Amino acid sequence: MLILGIDPGFAIVGFGLVETAGSRQRLVQCGAITTPAGEPLPARLKQISDDMGLLLSQFKPDVMAIEELFFNNNITTGIGVAQARGVLLLSAEQHGVPIYEYSPSQVKQAVVGYGKAEKRQVMDMTRRLLNLKAVPRPDDAADAVAIALCHARSFTSRLQSPDAARPGSGRYAVHHD
Amino acid sequence: MLILGIDPGFAIVGFGLVETAGSRQRLVQCGAITTPAGEPLPARLKQISDDMGLLLSQFKPDVMAIEELFFNNNITTGIGVAQARGVLLLSAEQHGVPIYEYSPSQVKQAVVGYGKAEKRQVMDMTRRLLNLKAVPRPDDAADAVAIALCHARSFTSRLQSPDAARPGSGRYAVHHD
Repeated sequence: MLILGIDPGFAIVGFGLVETAGSRQRLVQCGAITTPAGEPLPARLKQISDDMGLLLSQFKPDVMAIEELFFNNNITTGIGVAQARGVLLLSAEQHGVPIYEYSPSQVKQAVVGYGKAEKRQVMDMTRRLLNLKAVPRPDDAADAVAIALCHARSFTSRLQSPDAARPGSGRYAVHHD
Repeated sequence: MLILGIDPGFAIVGFGLVETAGSRQRLVQCGAITTPAGEPLPARLKQISDDMGLLLSQFKPDVMAIEELFFNNNITTGIGVAQARGVLLLSAEQHGVPIYEYSPSQVKQAVVGYGKAEKRQVMDMTRRLLNLKAVPRPDDAADAVAIALCHARSFTSRLQSPDAARPGSGRYAVHHD
């Protein structure tokens, strides 16, 4: 199974393609889509849509795993990120790719085994689990790889122990209004 | 000039097409795109994208005027609305339609002449200015028509009195991060 992990944003979208077979995972590719800061937001959204479309066509992932959105400090940036995330979800849907979403603590739990792990621990475990010489760069790509790993490991643990604690994963949650 | 006013949402997207010539405006069409509550969000986003694409292809508006997003009470709904708004901006950009955005108080100012007008006053003035027998329904369509009217009237006032108070309109504001 090929998993496309996504760290959503409008200035930079991190992506990580992880192949999983049984309990073993391999990094296929990772990187980031970046959009120029001076451009109007609609043009940046179109670039994200075009580039994500190319990625989905080229690699044909089986699933997309994307970070859940929380609004903390900067609500203006948050609105921009949410608008970009809508475009990313649309791209996956247009390519028939099922979407799973994970919270930051689910990613930490799945990768490090501790939901309050520090970012540096997540990066280090991501590197180790995939037998990489260095942590992927930029940070957004590394985050996306960790999200893909989270899906791989949640999925694995669900298959291996259906009665274990809730694996913290589910099909995309609908936000009702 | 044909203006497509949009009241963004993910359960319901209001739209209103207003033709403006000089200081006169005419309602061409209005309505709403609705998506089923039980569907996963990505499927609803795709439906919004498909339906908006059809509207843009059929009517070929010269501009899109869309409500600015503020987050007040329900942040979960707000994230959903922002994701849908990203898809709507993308549709306009893909069709080469320039986007203008207006705050609720700008719409009230342009339609009623008072930035703190009540919703009912906005609806009534919308009906009168367009010589309609009744306020458009549903509410989301009426809101979208008011946004289109706002663009028509801001644009007019800017042409007629360039030194008057700021007309409250500008090309889409970029959200930098």
